[in-house]
Amino acid sequence: MKNSDHKYMSLCIDLALKGKGKVEPNPLVGCVIVKKNKIIGKGYHRKFGANHAEVNTIKNALKGTTSLQDSVLYVNLEPCSHFGKTPPCTDLIIKHKIKKVVIGLKDPNPLVNGKGIAKLRKAGINVKTGILSQKCFELNEKFIINISQKRPFITLKVAQSIDGKIALNNFSSRWITDIFSRKFTHELRAQNDCILIGRNSVTQDNPELTVRHVKSLRQPVRVVIDKDLKLTLKYKLIKNTPPLTIIFHSSLKKTEDKKYLKYIYVKSNNNIIQVSDIVKHLYNIGYYSILVEGGSFVFSQFIREDIFDELIVISAPKIFGDGISSFKDFKLDSIAKAKELFLKDIILLNKDIILKYKNYRNVYRHSN
Amino acid sequence: MKNSDHKYMSLCIDLALKGKGKVEPNPLVGCVIVKKNKIIGKGYHRKFGANHAEVNTIKNALKGTTSLQDSVLYVNLEPCSHFGKTPPCTDLIIKHKIKKVVIGLKDPNPLVNGKGIAKLRKAGINVKTGILSQKCFELNEKFIINISQKRPFITLKVAQSIDGKIALNNFSSRWITDIFSRKFTHELRAQNDCILIGRNSVTQDNPELTVRHVKSLRQPVRVVIDKDLKLTLKYKLIKNTPPLTIIFHSSLKKTEDKKYLKYIYVKSNNNIIQVSDIVKHLYNIGYYSILVEGGSFVFSQFIREDIFDELIVISAPKIFGDGISSFKDFKLDSIAKAKELFLKDIILLNKDIILKYKNYRNVYRHSN
Repeated sequence: MKNSDHKYMSLCIDLALKGKGKVEPNPLVGCVIVKKNKIIGKGYHRKFGANHAEVNTIKNALKGTTSLQDSVLYVNLEPCSHFGKTPPCTDLIIKHKIKKVVIGLKDPNPLVNGKGIAKLRKAGINVKTGILSQKCFELNEKFIINISQKRPFITLKVAQSIDGKIALNNFSSRWITDIFSRKFTHELRAQNDCILIGRNSVTQDNPELTVRHVKSLRQPVRVVIDKDLKLTLKYKLIKNTPPLTIIFHSSLKKTEDKKYLKYIYVKSNNNIIQVSDIVKHLYNIGYYSILVEGGSFVFSQFIREDIFDELIVISAPKIFGDGISSFKDFKLDSIAKAKELFLKDIILLNKDIILKYKNYRNVYRHSN
Repeated sequence: MKNSDHKYMSLCIDLALKGKGKVEPNPLVGCVIVKKNKIIGKGYHRKFGANHAEVNTIKNALKGTTSLQDSVLYVNLEPCSHFGKTPPCTDLIIKHKIKKVVIGLKDPNPLVNGKGIAKLRKAGINVKTGILSQKCFELNEKFIINISQKRPFITLKVAQSIDGKIALNNFSSRWITDIFSRKFTHELRAQNDCILIGRNSVTQDNPELTVRHVKSLRQPVRVVIDKDLKLTLKYKLIKNTPPLTIIFHSSLKKTEDKKYLKYIYVKSNNNIIQVSDIVKHLYNIGYYSILVEGGSFVFSQFIREDIFDELIVISAPKIFGDGISSFKDFKLDSIAKAKELFLKDIILLNKDIILKYKNYRNVYRHSN
């Protein structure tokens, strides 16, 4: 049974992935209905606001059969038991007298979390959970962070030398990595709602922070932390050209929003704006993922506040020696207290290597 | 023909590897004789000072046939044409009227370099070179460095955090990596003739620098750079216990060699002992490989003098932030001048990752 459970749950994941890029910020969900070891229905969540995967799958199954009695429903995420944009899936499952429900992962949404399972069980349905839960978790890690922590999924991306430097002491940083890695960065940008950098990165590099080099249907919003509003119009980000730039500050200077330039005031704390305040702001206005591109002061803030989910290191095969360290403003007094991440993926590009680390404590502590 | 050339040369490499650990500091050499697309002889260099691979292979072939006329001999390294411990292999090949010789790599030994090939061609033998030359090169990289640069093969090994720190600012460095990585380090030690560190590493860590945790037939010699002879008897390395410790210094203090403690005076230059002087000394007294284990001052010297062949980074999935950078005493004024290495291998251990870089300019510039 275990093998067939895994097989059908893998299929749910494959189906779920078909919704990628269309359902966000909803989770990716796929569903399969099996009767006498034969798949009689398949479906997935196709589009934000549209039918849940379970609804599509039950509809699909009913095309070929009249009754779902004695069938088993597989789904990678716990069925909902509340009225949202659509009626609760649990009611539909109960109505069709499905015998057993196999679930990959409990829904981290506090409105669901276990309630769907309880409702099904109360109706006499056999419920099994935790099948391929790690994979089901990874499939929806962004959604899980969003819903459980009420903040965007946060990726720190650093391009550094073998010895962890993002620039020489003269601030020279062009180019650490090669064009293949820069393309990778642009793909990464296209997958995020916002790109965030600090003021120093603007004055040193004057970046555009747009998606180039790769095809993309959207341009993420650019976010800059400029506490005292020191950035002038000479910088590309401030020129009121698309896409939108949001500037977080704690200055009392008068600001004037323009079409592509928006100012948000946040209180500072010990003369520093807390990044946790910024990301909550962004979440509340509808941004669900942030790519943080530096510099080391900003990276260090996210690390100090332990508010990041992924660290992507693009490592160039170069030695810089003395220079500016990636996270130099983060201080540690004992190795035992060092932040330990989990190396999840390695990608070999032309000459550079990409290491994807997950921040266990954030991303995995909600896993069941 | 190309495919069969590759097939037979691969076999030579496999045969050559059987001599590993027994032929050093000689090169690993394997040989195959083919007649009418059939292998009629195989052999390899089995032991330092014993028959060359070609001799063993010709002997092996003659067991089953009376004549080697019209046969093709494959060998990963150019046959020798000089009298060393054994007579020249070229003469034997010519004597047996072998029709064609296929060679992986020209011998980097200045006593051979091309002369063997010239001699064979002069005798009317068809000679083909450069088959799997990259692999043949890698097989004998240590030997090639030894013979072409008259110095040991030098590996820098650094254990660092994601952000390139080998210690916190309070010098705490235990433990950056886990026990699996430490075992890897001990295996690495067992493969080298010497382990070299600087004085600061002795005073900070008081290491034994021996091979533990893994089985090893030998203990490498321990080498310390202690310019002013400041190290006292309280350190494990200085206690006159096996294995031998060699201390390089440029002090005028009187020194007294003991059974397991040897002092070597080297002139300093601008108050620094050049590591190139040290490694040449070690080569001249019969050490063919050095593992450099730090600290950052010593690493930086090897990088500055560009006298290393391999950099092995053991990267722990931890963030240190501010701390001591791996190569902090190496300075660079422009990224264009950065040392660019070649990422050759990646090994995943328990939590840590091992990245093996080659120093192109040293190791590969002699490749043909």
